[in-house]
Amino acid sequence: MEQQTIEVGLGERSYPITIGAGIFRQIGEMLKTAGIAQRYGIISDDRVAALYGDLLSATLEKSRVRAELFTFPPGEESKCLQTVEELAGRLAVAGFDRASALIALGGGVVGDITGFLASVYMRGIPFVQIPTTLLAQVDSSVGGKTGVDLPQGKNLIGTFYQPRAVYIDTDVLQTLPKDEFLGGMAEVIKYGASMDADFFHWLRQQHDAIVALDPAVIVPMIRRCCEMKAAVVEQDEQESGLRRILNFGHTIGHAVEAVSGYELNHGFAVAIGMQAVAELAVRSGRASSAVAEEIGALLHLYGLPLEIPAQYDRVSLRRFMRTDKKASGGRLVFVLPVALGTVDITDQIDETALDAVLA
Amino acid sequence: MEQQTIEVGLGERSYPITIGAGIFRQIGEMLKTAGIAQRYGIISDDRVAALYGDLLSATLEKSRVRAELFTFPPGEESKCLQTVEELAGRLAVAGFDRASALIALGGGVVGDITGFLASVYMRGIPFVQIPTTLLAQVDSSVGGKTGVDLPQGKNLIGTFYQPRAVYIDTDVLQTLPKDEFLGGMAEVIKYGASMDADFFHWLRQQHDAIVALDPAVIVPMIRRCCEMKAAVVEQDEQESGLRRILNFGHTIGHAVEAVSGYELNHGFAVAIGMQAVAELAVRSGRASSAVAEEIGALLHLYGLPLEIPAQYDRVSLRRFMRTDKKASGGRLVFVLPVALGTVDITDQIDETALDAVLA
Repeated sequence: MEQQTIEVGLGERSYPITIGAGIFRQIGEMLKTAGIAQRYGIISDDRVAALYGDLLSATLEKSRVRAELFTFPPGEESKCLQTVEELAGRLAVAGFDRASALIALGGGVVGDITGFLASVYMRGIPFVQIPTTLLAQVDSSVGGKTGVDLPQGKNLIGTFYQPRAVYIDTDVLQTLPKDEFLGGMAEVIKYGASMDADFFHWLRQQHDAIVALDPAVIVPMIRRCCEMKAAVVEQDEQESGLRRILNFGHTIGHAVEAVSGYELNHGFAVAIGMQAVAELAVRSGRASSAVAEEIGALLHLYGLPLEIPAQYDRVSLRRFMRTDKKASGGRLVFVLPVALGTVDITDQIDETALDAVLA
Repeated sequence: MEQQTIEVGLGERSYPITIGAGIFRQIGEMLKTAGIAQRYGIISDDRVAALYGDLLSATLEKSRVRAELFTFPPGEESKCLQTVEELAGRLAVAGFDRASALIALGGGVVGDITGFLASVYMRGIPFVQIPTTLLAQVDSSVGGKTGVDLPQGKNLIGTFYQPRAVYIDTDVLQTLPKDEFLGGMAEVIKYGASMDADFFHWLRQQHDAIVALDPAVIVPMIRRCCEMKAAVVEQDEQESGLRRILNFGHTIGHAVEAVSGYELNHGFAVAIGMQAVAELAVRSGRASSAVAEEIGALLHLYGLPLEIPAQYDRVSLRRFMRTDKKASGGRLVFVLPVALGTVDITDQIDETALDAVLA
């Protein structure tokens, strides 16, 4: 069985990520060895809990790790302070204290809520993550960003708070809807396109094995993404500069996602955003057209969209980009691919070129 | 004019506390020099804003520091997630971003809410404190504890988050109701009784000047409290051990406060709690009766209560003590005075002695 562990090096906040096919059954033993807490609250949504709640409870019980399950309805609508307040109240009534810890069992929404809840419950208790979507495995499991939405915008409330451990079982991808898997692949391609040309080419060569979920390629693929994100986060834990490289495809992607009323899959929006900034780089004379073509070809190979849907209102798109919180200090920051695996981070953008790309 | 500055040494989270009579008018210049943010949101309650909002706005305007005021209704009932959500929404609509900061203008509730809001708004923006009660000046301005209440208990949601600066104008104490001042004095006496016998005796000698709010004694008094709390927090930022010394008088005090339905002034409850643990120390043979008598005499000199009111239900009192979150791991931790200025922190308590003290 493929099983690999990497360390996210953040000083006293360092933690291991264990990746493997079928490691779910060992989580009880691993948690017991890690000795993080006397008691665990498993936080999940009703859908993931129905799929994996029993499996997790069984491994914890077998290793005599004390745990109780707390769930909420699935979906982004749950990602609000009311869910946090309700979960915290249930934890308090059940007697969870500073010697307890949380387990996030689920995708990005579960991870964001659980990480935030852990960071503020009794001023902070430990938490571990068991991400069950590809997106959460390659993106949310490294970086320590937690958060909930406000009616006024997404992720407006949150913290930087690191998990104590992350357990990634690649077998869970077998129950993931195909679009969710492909959306995750957009983030995987992001790492290759922005940071590692060899990995980018490998993703093309291994396409068939990857979509077949062969652990022999899926495990090293996820490992490589986590390594790259860890390398960035280790240098810029609180997103003051370098970490912006992780926003490759996201400046326009977020706007596309917003204009869709968050109906469009996040990864699909990022794919569109990556293709858009690749074209922006070409139009501004910062990259050869071959770069944009190669990125577009790989996105297309994985069945990801490249174009901003014609029906999306361009005025709303520009308005959203202006109000995006990443426009800190009033300037939009773009991450432009200048070659495969290499980017330029800049707030100097030719507005005519941007207009042409968004047209 | 008396003006003193001390530094709370927490590595990269270090910050200065400036204490003086009439320094309010200089806050604009001091903030400008500190260069913390481009724009400030002043968070206050309606009562404090009516008293000091204009004064603060004037000094900021004079120094061309951009700031807007956001208020909420006064009182502990406002210390909830709903207030945080509402304030965050108003900040977002007004365009506050990561280049902004908050100013907490008020007492403990304002400080707790503002600190928490600052720690989670866009995953954390800077904040400064202008504490306007004696309790907030000597207690909340050092330590970085932020938080809000849940229906299930007080301060169940919060963070450890340090301000960038604290400005203490002792002149504001002139508008403070007498009971609130005396409640603050209970915390001042706490520092003397638990950590500094010389300060304890000085508080007795200077009683008349202190209650007359003479800046020549009030400024050094507040400074000494902040210094002592800073020394503790510097060694134990996240309350894992030593910091429990600050809970002197609070284990029983919190229970008394809770049983009063939070009608009793916090400082009055702490005074009762200090006297109770002093008696507990004597009854358990860990302190001479002179220690309890000296503590009682100083509390009495400042008009503070010593006895648990007869009508308070003792069964509820014991039940609250058991469920208090400080009973981490199931044991109640007591901070016992063994001599003036010296304490023992212990979870080994003679239950018979405790029963007698609470009787």
